[in-house]
Amino acid sequence: MSLTVLKLGGSVITEKGSPETVDEERLELVVEALRGTDDLVLVHGAGSFGHHHAAAHGVSQDEGTHDTEGVLAIHRSMVRLNDRMLDALGERGIPALPVHPLSAGYRDREGTLFHPIAHVGTMVDEGFVPLLHGDVIVQAKAGATILSGDDLVVALAEGLDADCLGLCSTVPGVLDGEGGVIDRIDSLENVVDVLGGSDSTDVTGGMAAKVEKLLATDAPASIFGPDDVEAFLAGKSPGTLIGG
Amino acid sequence: MSLTVLKLGGSVITEKGSPETVDEERLELVVEALRGTDDLVLVHGAGSFGHHHAAAHGVSQDEGTHDTEGVLAIHRSMVRLNDRMLDALGERGIPALPVHPLSAGYRDREGTLFHPIAHVGTMVDEGFVPLLHGDVIVQAKAGATILSGDDLVVALAEGLDADCLGLCSTVPGVLDGEGGVIDRIDSLENVVDVLGGSDSTDVTGGMAAKVEKLLATDAPASIFGPDDVEAFLAGKSPGTLIGG
Repeated sequence: MSLTVLKLGGSVITEKGSPETVDEERLELVVEALRGTDDLVLVHGAGSFGHHHAAAHGVSQDEGTHDTEGVLAIHRSMVRLNDRMLDALGERGIPALPVHPLSAGYRDREGTLFHPIAHVGTMVDEGFVPLLHGDVIVQAKAGATILSGDDLVVALAEGLDADCLGLCSTVPGVLDGEGGVIDRIDSLENVVDVLGGSDSTDVTGGMAAKVEKLLATDAPASIFGPDDVEAFLAGKSPGTLIGG
Repeated sequence: MSLTVLKLGGSVITEKGSPETVDEERLELVVEALRGTDDLVLVHGAGSFGHHHAAAHGVSQDEGTHDTEGVLAIHRSMVRLNDRMLDALGERGIPALPVHPLSAGYRDREGTLFHPIAHVGTMVDEGFVPLLHGDVIVQAKAGATILSGDDLVVALAEGLDADCLGLCSTVPGVLDGEGGVIDRIDSLENVVDVLGGSDSTDVTGGMAAKVEKLLATDAPASIFGPDDVEAFLAGKSPGTLIGG
């Protein structure tokens, strides 16, 4: 089987400026494009769901908390988005099942992520589509910290030995200084000058961080826009191809 | 540290005869008794939340399903109960965090359970109280099957090397033929004649199954009623002591 790990960015499926609001039109567009895809693992970001609560409780990838209320506020917000996604997928016949990282993974005191993947692989083998998401997870000596969807995608792609890896973003790829899409990136140095930050509150890093993580994976990775999900799943390389 | 794994039976915290109804009075009684307990892992059963949907979709520990709607119906019902429990615990200052087995564990094709426990241990180390539950989980070649709270308790107690293990039930212990509580059970043969089934729909086995599982663990295990939670957590052996 040819396994694909696809992340739907939080800004793709939500209206980032407006708290806990799904972008229904975009979500429908993307979910339609997923129909009929076998051997797929999905991850979604937070958008206007998680970051908000993370910022309010002062929690990030580096700053932990022992405040249970804060952890639950962030986690439940992400679960609400996950639930909406599950319904949208289920309505179109995509057999998605939820996998919440808080229930499965953790970081050790050095910040190294441990997330089990055998059950995710079994879900795929049994014909389900695991739907994971950025979350808050426990970390030794730090309480609980943020796990970004990007870090999760990389861990899943490596653990499951994925054949390809896609990040669906609001932009059509990694953009150069003139707003054109860079076709291919093989090293961070060549593009670091043109990569800016994200345009809204994002506790999980901007485009430069994404590219750096994707360069470190074995599988070829693509960053592309919502209109290119179908092309990506058809085996084409829309947007920007990174490493691989 | 002295780690305790405590299961709250579904029939303790819900009204088993009435669909998706929490027994608020019982829940409060039990949660009050948990206050101030360190190094605790909690598991709850299904009661009137999960079994119902499991029966409706023909799913049990032996009968699997590939029907995503069925899996989600069972799982979401358990998550609703888990959410109620989290709130009840949080309101009394018990720092409980959810761990949903569907997100973490699976069974292989022989039916052997694999459930990660390192993140559960990290939660405890960081001062949180992991709250797990009976659930539906994926199983190789079977789709998804039921994981009973009892099986989960045993897996957690073994994986975390727990010092003691408690099962809070509606009855004050394992009862003999005359309705008296058996103080101690060291082998199944001595009691198998007097152990009956459960009194409502229960897809996860009755008292005999509980005793058999607890006999197989290293930690001493107690089965007791809702009034004895405090005594159990104080290190006494209310109800029936099994093996150990």
